[in-house]
Amino acid sequence: MRRRLETSFVARLATVDADGRPHIVPITFGLEDKTLYFAVDFKPKRTTNLKRLSNIATNPAVSVLIDRYESDWDLLWWVRLDGTARIVTEPGEVEHAVNLLAQRYEQYRTIRPAGPVVAITIERMTGWSAA
Amino acid sequence: MRRRLETSFVARLATVDADGRPHIVPITFGLEDKTLYFAVDFKPKRTTNLKRLSNIATNPAVSVLIDRYESDWDLLWWVRLDGTARIVTEPGEVEHAVNLLAQRYEQYRTIRPAGPVVAITIERMTGWSAA
Repeated sequence: MRRRLETSFVARLATVDADGRPHIVPITFGLEDKTLYFAVDFKPKRTTNLKRLSNIATNPAVSVLIDRYESDWDLLWWVRLDGTARIVTEPGEVEHAVNLLAQRYEQYRTIRPAGPVVAITIERMTGWSAA
Repeated sequence: MRRRLETSFVARLATVDADGRPHIVPITFGLEDKTLYFAVDFKPKRTTNLKRLSNIATNPAVSVLIDRYESDWDLLWWVRLDGTARIVTEPGEVEHAVNLLAQRYEQYRTIRPAGPVVAITIERMTGWSAA
């Protein structure tokens, strides 16, 4: 599962709003031990302007899915990470997370993400594979 | 957005459990007007044995994401469907939904899905494209 995460470049993040409605967005990510980091490319006017961030502020429980889809269903697999998210405020950790992202994505080496960084502490890893 | 949905063969479904925790799984799907259908391939011992189904029974609010990821970020796009899910009980509608799925996926023409069928009434469609 770890190897699959490390060689994947997109994940989908599910969060929940104050009314109990789910929200889902694609994210790019970096991994370190039991933490997954993602960043917002642009600086929102207010952190709460972005649904994924306001949801995390209200309810930090998140679920992240990394999967492979192919028309040959024998090749399907998925890995799900359930955990708790927090917006990173400590400048050293922001720098560290952005460096991690820049190592994985050339776009972040050209233009570093300007928005908030989120850290997800992975509490559970679940996986399935057709093979 | 409609065209992107119709030419995509995998989506990710987010549901919420009774404790307000999100859950996310990949799904195959069929679309008809304002309804998205998906099916469970196998027959669970009890409907509530499968997290996505027990979540829907508790909280019918769901979010579905269809997106494209490429290392060239100019090609990125996503479409999100927010709606209300229900487990289909009427046999005619189950048959209709499975036919819709079998039209899109050859695997379902060989082995029809044996498990419950879920209908999501799409209440909102949101989209983004880098291009």
